Amino acid sequence: MTMIATCAAAGSAAVLLPVSVTAQQQGMQVSEFRLANGLDVVVIPDRRTPVVTHMLWYRIGSADETPGKSGLAHFLEHLMFKGTEKNPAGRFSQVVATIGGQENAFTSQDYTAYFQRVTKENLEQVMTFEADRMTGLQLTDEVVLPERDVVLEERRMRTDNDPAAQLSEALSAALYVNHPYGRPIIGWMHEIQQLSRESALDFYRRFYTPNNAVLVLAGDLDEKEARALAEKTYGKVPRVAEVAPRVRPVEPEPRAHRRITLADQRVRQPSLSRYYLVPSYRTAAGGEAEALEVLAQILGGGQTSRLYRTLVVEKGIAANAGAWYQGTSLDATRFGLYASPRPGTSLESLEAALDEVVAQIAKHGVDAGEIDRVKTRVIASTIFSQDNQTTLARIYGAALTTGMNTASVKEWPEKIKAVTPEQVQEAAKKWLDIRRAVTGHLVRPQDSAPEKRT
Amino acid sequence: MTMIATCAAAGSAAVLLPVSVTAQQQGMQVSEFRLANGLDVVVIPDRRTPVVTHMLWYRIGSADETPGKSGLAHFLEHLMFKGTEKNPAGRFSQVVATIGGQENAFTSQDYTAYFQRVTKENLEQVMTFEADRMTGLQLTDEVVLPERDVVLEERRMRTDNDPAAQLSEALSAALYVNHPYGRPIIGWMHEIQQLSRESALDFYRRFYTPNNAVLVLAGDLDEKEARALAEKTYGKVPRVAEVAPRVRPVEPEPRAHRRITLADQRVRQPSLSRYYLVPSYRTAAGGEAEALEVLAQILGGGQTSRLYRTLVVEKGIAANAGAWYQGTSLDATRFGLYASPRPGTSLESLEAALDEVVAQIAKHGVDAGEIDRVKTRVIASTIFSQDNQTTLARIYGAALTTGMNTASVKEWPEKIKAVTPEQVQEAAKKWLDIRRAVTGHLVRPQDSAPEKRT
Repeated sequence: MTMIATCAAAGSAAVLLPVSVTAQQQGMQVSEFRLANGLDVVVIPDRRTPVVTHMLWYRIGSADETPGKSGLAHFLEHLMFKGTEKNPAGRFSQVVATIGGQENAFTSQDYTAYFQRVTKENLEQVMTFEADRMTGLQLTDEVVLPERDVVLEERRMRTDNDPAAQLSEALSAALYVNHPYGRPIIGWMHEIQQLSRESALDFYRRFYTPNNAVLVLAGDLDEKEARALAEKTYGKVPRVAEVAPRVRPVEPEPRAHRRITLADQRVRQPSLSRYYLVPSYRTAAGGEAEALEVLAQILGGGQTSRLYRTLVVEKGIAANAGAWYQGTSLDATRFGLYASPRPGTSLESLEAALDEVVAQIAKHGVDAGEIDRVKTRVIASTIFSQDNQTTLARIYGAALTTGMNTASVKEWPEKIKAVTPEQVQEAAKKWLDIRRAVTGHLVRPQDSAPEKRT
Repeated sequence: MTMIATCAAAGSAAVLLPVSVTAQQQGMQVSEFRLANGLDVVVIPDRRTPVVTHMLWYRIGSADETPGKSGLAHFLEHLMFKGTEKNPAGRFSQVVATIGGQENAFTSQDYTAYFQRVTKENLEQVMTFEADRMTGLQLTDEVVLPERDVVLEERRMRTDNDPAAQLSEALSAALYVNHPYGRPIIGWMHEIQQLSRESALDFYRRFYTPNNAVLVLAGDLDEKEARALAEKTYGKVPRVAEVAPRVRPVEPEPRAHRRITLADQRVRQPSLSRYYLVPSYRTAAGGEAEALEVLAQILGGGQTSRLYRTLVVEKGIAANAGAWYQGTSLDATRFGLYASPRPGTSLESLEAALDEVVAQIAKHGVDAGEIDRVKTRVIASTIFSQDNQTTLARIYGAALTTGMNTASVKEWPEKIKAVTPEQVQEAAKKWLDIRRAVTGHLVRPQDSAPEKRT
């Protein structure tokens, strides 16, 4: 197993989007405790099969990097597979494969996580491995430099050869003028090229310590078993660093709409993307994040949403259209709209129609029936999500590494239920203000006459 | 004299634009030396009147600030007038006023400078004052907090109440996605509000040290006199800090045109601005910066320039149009175009006409007569600049704090003369590529139908 195929540096918004859990409703006993060395532990019992999902989350992501060293959090994620004194490179992954387990790792703007899914009897072994590499990583230039080439190739594949990914990168860079969310998780090419063994080890020693991590165990065990195993493995890891509060530069109040046109011969389907700068669950005032979540669903959650119905079904000018809200974020985050035109429709007219749909909600609000249907659907999707141990574990891990806690995860469905039509309208008015936005057009060069230079 | 009226935080590109000196031609003996504590000294004799311009330049500007503390370099510039143990607040300025001198201070992205213009017999006194505050600054919250309010008010006046300044700020923020030139010199409002006495002193102690400064003396003295005075005053200041190389995050290769529309009721005259990311004198490969300088003049230097002739005179669609190149910059810098439409002309059609002027040069180049006239004019303007002691001193100070040296200033006219038509065409092709650009439209709300939300 190589990290190229499995790690998820692109930081897709989709993963943590509109799902949560109704743990209380299901009588699920999610518990949490903290070890003496500061490690937070969340236990999510799921007794259906003798399997456990083991995830270790660090409260460290690309937004915590030093300016000029973008990509370091993700690079270190790769390097974490390069071995320790006790376990040479590859042994951990090999053991997971041998016992029929699965493993993965991913880096976001706010966290870096490692996980394995194994049968219960192998849990202690993977916990021992993971605890060992929390502070025991050993790196030589012989392994660091080739791995850097792997990451550079990953960037080429995922971003530099993909115009849509380039545009998305440019949109985030334009949306965030001051906050580090403006830089790509994988890093800028020219900065990845400069990342060194020393930088990686320095970053590792500053941030990889039990008091900066969250262990999530979901599966066939209870709190008592979890505690015993955690004490026996992670409990022995010393607290090697004190970690300062995560205070990042804050965005100034945006006041001018920005537009980006990316023209590339490789574009097959032109498209339109818009990001608005909005509050996250952590930064929002009471109820605003939940209202944005509901608004995203009303505007663009599936084929019954307003954008889809209006642009795709009624007007027939779009092949696709939708909306999303990345609420799980330590700092101010993104609300997105997107649409692709049918042949014969310009991006300009598609954008005008999309703007009209947004303006309708801001002006006339939403009706009670519409909001109820959306809430029911959102909450139902959280019940389905419980069927997936990994999804559940990810929800808790992401929450606890972006400034929320288990209580906020548990209360989430009730808070969604409490969202009123007035709050949704107010959210559209206040946050989907064009001055807070950046709009991207992805086109083929000939589609973009005003940008053409001859 | 208060600092509000005199300090120049806006960092106008105009000051250091296309002027330099032909010192050799004039037989002017500009000399330089370094004191034992690391202070660089430049002496520019000018014996016409018994007056000396005394400038102390620090190699520290807004681009050297810690992220999240924008505005600190400029704030410290204000605080430098708050007194030392030997000289309480206001005494230095009062003495300068009493002796009939002038003083000023300014902060840019790359430097912070303090200057006085006094009669020769008062020079030693101002040098003594300036040397004293190099390391002797004392600050209390009683002076720091009210001065912060002064800076906040300065920001409100200069930027927040001026739509054109807001757009300019937004354009730089969009042009620079990774490098700190993207943040305003004066700082983001919410970050200025958090600047503290401790932050200011910490910044001061790190960067205000003789080995991080350049003393420029222009006027009625020779090298020997200058050396004696410098030794006697600045020579006694200890080297209090070692300063790390100024390595800032580098911009990724831009690849998508960005547009910003700022609509504001206060806009009287709509306008169009474009910035391209281009190399500076320090970062450019041989001859490229000089070619950009000549290109800026051909495109937009005055009423004989191509933009003015085409848009204002021939087509009659613009009230004004021009171009500039901010070559004096430690890192990758801006090349700017601007135009204001006559009533009845849309910004879109004005922009298309402007693009056509640029495209003509990229496609067909410039002719020998045109380039010769521009070079003659540029070089002549440097001769006029010698008549102004302050301008001369500023040219050397800015050069020596942005990675250049006195030799590069002296050689500059010869290098301008050497620019070929082919280099100018190549510069237009390579650097005035729309993908490297951000374009701003400043409009009244009703002028901007596509952005309007009802």
